[in-house]
Amino acid sequence: MAKQERAIRTRNALITAAAELFDQDGYEASSLAVISARAGVSSGALHFHFANKAALVDGVVNAAGERLRSITRHRDALSLQVLIDASHDLVRGLAQDVVLRAGFALSARPERTAAARDLRRDWQTWVEATVERAAREGALMPGVVPCDLATTVVAVAAGLEALGGGDPRWLDRSALARFWALVLPCVVSPAARDLFAGLGRAGCDPVPRGVPVAPPRIGS
Amino acid sequence: MAKQERAIRTRNALITAAAELFDQDGYEASSLAVISARAGVSSGALHFHFANKAALVDGVVNAAGERLRSITRHRDALSLQVLIDASHDLVRGLAQDVVLRAGFALSARPERTAAARDLRRDWQTWVEATVERAAREGALMPGVVPCDLATTVVAVAAGLEALGGGDPRWLDRSALARFWALVLPCVVSPAARDLFAGLGRAGCDPVPRGVPVAPPRIGS
Repeated sequence: MAKQERAIRTRNALITAAAELFDQDGYEASSLAVISARAGVSSGALHFHFANKAALVDGVVNAAGERLRSITRHRDALSLQVLIDASHDLVRGLAQDVVLRAGFALSARPERTAAARDLRRDWQTWVEATVERAAREGALMPGVVPCDLATTVVAVAAGLEALGGGDPRWLDRSALARFWALVLPCVVSPAARDLFAGLGRAGCDPVPRGVPVAPPRIGS
Repeated sequence: MAKQERAIRTRNALITAAAELFDQDGYEASSLAVISARAGVSSGALHFHFANKAALVDGVVNAAGERLRSITRHRDALSLQVLIDASHDLVRGLAQDVVLRAGFALSARPERTAAARDLRRDWQTWVEATVERAAREGALMPGVVPCDLATTVVAVAAGLEALGGGDPRWLDRSALARFWALVLPCVVSPAARDLFAGLGRAGCDPVPRGVPVAPPRIGS
């Protein structure tokens, strides 16, 4: 194995070990010594790659940022479809990919400077631009204000991330599917509706402490 | 001042001081010594009221729970209106009331036992019951699944709480108003719509990094 390849492997092993420990035991409780031991590398090797804990945090956040970039990559589809797909990819990633999950949590820590990378802000910027594109494509119902939709999508994703920290079932596909099932009928323009056939209802899967589903009775 | 009244004042001062310090410096960094000093009471007085840090956390969470109960108290109005009002009261409370904010954050800490009071779960239970009542009152559009609405409201509130920790503007009234403006048109039944006149659009107030508002153009 070439020297450079070994260095990249060591760096990735440290990032994964740090993400796992930060995610499991919290940032304060995770020492550099435990992280290097978990990665199976010497303390010297850790310090070769990361000068201190803050540099390791940057490493995890940047690795998570790469994953976020892949989630929000250009796709050849209607922007509203791209937004729905990316939101599902993000929530699934937060459930399954410890680097993405730890990166999001770390990038929101209060001691991070304003100039440091903030993954939620990156996500917000992308959501806003994508909703704007969806509006220009004529996919939004007349009267739907793009920033209302963008703000709501960002809030829901942050909420599922936060709730998922206490109960992973919030990061199931079903909770996010419930959100889209609720809003798509009033968000998708008639012109775009045919393209979203089958998207509306994902079945009333159990969600965390879901309320029993009863058909609404309409008053007089 | 009667002895009992003095004891209640001391206890409340300790809860407020603890909430302020947990909120400002984090749970780990806040020692009992600093908390009692901030409350202006002796270390002995603190230990008279709270045996240890975990008991103080319970004190803050329970005080926040009282505030949540007041937010979700019975109101003589349509259940959907009660839900909207309570969501605004909760978000405003998270912005302005440090005991409520710290209580929500503390009640989600991983070391809390499953039996300990969880304010987000209390809120979720209330939201689910209130949406169910709204459905029975005929206030929901046919086709709207109550658990979709309940899940979304819980996720949005948790998202605004989480995002508000990094940028308080998310706890402005405007971000939550955007959510309700987006969903109410497709959630409120025709029968109930007249009762919600004026609720739909709260104006496109600036929100954090809000996208510019452009009317959607509808494609052919």
